[in-house]
Amino acid sequence: MQLFAERLHQRCRELRSSVVVGLDPKPNLLSSRQEHDGKASTRALARSYVAFARDIVDAVADVALAIKVQVACYEALGLPGIRAYVETLRAIKARGIPVIGDIKRGDIGISSAGYLDGHFGRTAKAGGYDADAVTLSPYLGFDTIEPWMEACRTNGKGLFLLVRTSNPSARDLQDLIVDGAPLYASVARLVDRWGEPVRGSSGYSSIGAVVGATYPAELLAIRRAHPTLWILVPGYGAQGGTAADVAPAFDADGAGLLVSSSRGILAAYRESEKLGVPAVEHVRRAALSMRDDLLHAWRR
Amino acid sequence: MQLFAERLHQRCRELRSSVVVGLDPKPNLLSSRQEHDGKASTRALARSYVAFARDIVDAVADVALAIKVQVACYEALGLPGIRAYVETLRAIKARGIPVIGDIKRGDIGISSAGYLDGHFGRTAKAGGYDADAVTLSPYLGFDTIEPWMEACRTNGKGLFLLVRTSNPSARDLQDLIVDGAPLYASVARLVDRWGEPVRGSSGYSSIGAVVGATYPAELLAIRRAHPTLWILVPGYGAQGGTAADVAPAFDADGAGLLVSSSRGILAAYRESEKLGVPAVEHVRRAALSMRDDLLHAWRR
Repeated sequence: MQLFAERLHQRCRELRSSVVVGLDPKPNLLSSRQEHDGKASTRALARSYVAFARDIVDAVADVALAIKVQVACYEALGLPGIRAYVETLRAIKARGIPVIGDIKRGDIGISSAGYLDGHFGRTAKAGGYDADAVTLSPYLGFDTIEPWMEACRTNGKGLFLLVRTSNPSARDLQDLIVDGAPLYASVARLVDRWGEPVRGSSGYSSIGAVVGATYPAELLAIRRAHPTLWILVPGYGAQGGTAADVAPAFDADGAGLLVSSSRGILAAYRESEKLGVPAVEHVRRAALSMRDDLLHAWRR
Repeated sequence: MQLFAERLHQRCRELRSSVVVGLDPKPNLLSSRQEHDGKASTRALARSYVAFARDIVDAVADVALAIKVQVACYEALGLPGIRAYVETLRAIKARGIPVIGDIKRGDIGISSAGYLDGHFGRTAKAGGYDADAVTLSPYLGFDTIEPWMEACRTNGKGLFLLVRTSNPSARDLQDLIVDGAPLYASVARLVDRWGEPVRGSSGYSSIGAVVGATYPAELLAIRRAHPTLWILVPGYGAQGGTAADVAPAFDADGAGLLVSSSRGILAAYRESEKLGVPAVEHVRRAALSMRDDLLHAWRR
């Protein structure tokens, strides 16, 4: 089976797109009419999350390099939310779009294997999650990542490990100085090394890094140190990251980054109702415009 | 409402117990008869996890300082597993035992709030999780912890942040040298400081640390630096930690530690079937003997 790194590389070339659409649904997704009916039930909310995902998938199937689904938004709703998460992953996979479960899990051997079984669809055929890639935390070290390697090697799965996150407090731990450089630089080095066994012919590995768009200097430093590391870059748009911020971190072919926008996409979806235009069309325009902004910034 | 830290302190004194029973159910929980029926369905497994939890709760209701539930074991089974997780938390709370969701989550502001809503039962009344405390990862910094503080302050909730985990690869990141000391020492300092606003009259805070029993020297060093920090100590028993290893880290009153055994309890549960004795009795004996071992080691 094709390595996840190679699948991404090929899709990136075919679509000329580095756009990752982030699904971070919030309770305000319900249309204003439903909200006026009173406090929405958890079930109604969960249903609206699935409808949202279906619209987004229709809108960006040939624009998005990948879709990232934030499991916290679904876990917030308890069981009905998790059911919506399962349906959402299915709807994305049905259209052949690589789906990244933004789960940021991390636990020791046996528990790590539990998450692996759950999120890479190894145990539960019915009612199981099945992402193409997931985000993981590196804080517990390699033996918590190792159980996932076999799935990367043989089942076309991918991992993105947190290196430098997009939030202000990222600096609390990630900027602590280790050997004269920030901790995140050490973590990036570990991630690149851990990914060695699942490196494809493009030079890229199926184990990548997460680096926030809100820290362009750090992003560029990590790229320079690691020329062939897939970097998932959240924080584009609403969180403050711009195309000009991230563009220097593309490789010579304009690949190597998965730039993720969540709130921008969500905003376009909400806005369409007010404007009275179809959500699918409005979201599609937003995604195309993000794709073009990134392309232009890279060419400059 | 009583602070979580105070509730723990009071229960520790009343029961003279620092035993935390870890529920990490595995597929081998099904009785041998069920296993012989062929490959167990996910649903059957999930049902056996709930039955296991009910037996454990009956066995240790007046022995366990708390029960820790490892969500990864449930997430491994997809939706039926999550349903079992919800039922398990309910069964534990119904007996008044503090329940710690071992979820090791960590995400930026908005997503952190999603996990908070889910795991502290704020959103989903039906089908929601509702733990008394959860484990969180500190890698993303304080703004990912902050949303949880209000629940600690006003709803009697608690947090345990990963400081030094029990696995061999813990050293990959946690032992990197920062300012002449290992990273975990910096993290312990941050955790103790973050917990300041939810410190109770015992001196302990509702924000504690996770430090593996498998690293007694590190555990003791952390205790010396932080005399009033609740420390959740996994890795007791099967992973190698002994009563003698952890005892030096008790405070002068024999409090301050939540010592967690998972595989030992699981083994006792399985063993009872072979021995032909009631599981509840056999598990109870194992928990009592662990409680006494800890007490004796502390008094020595």
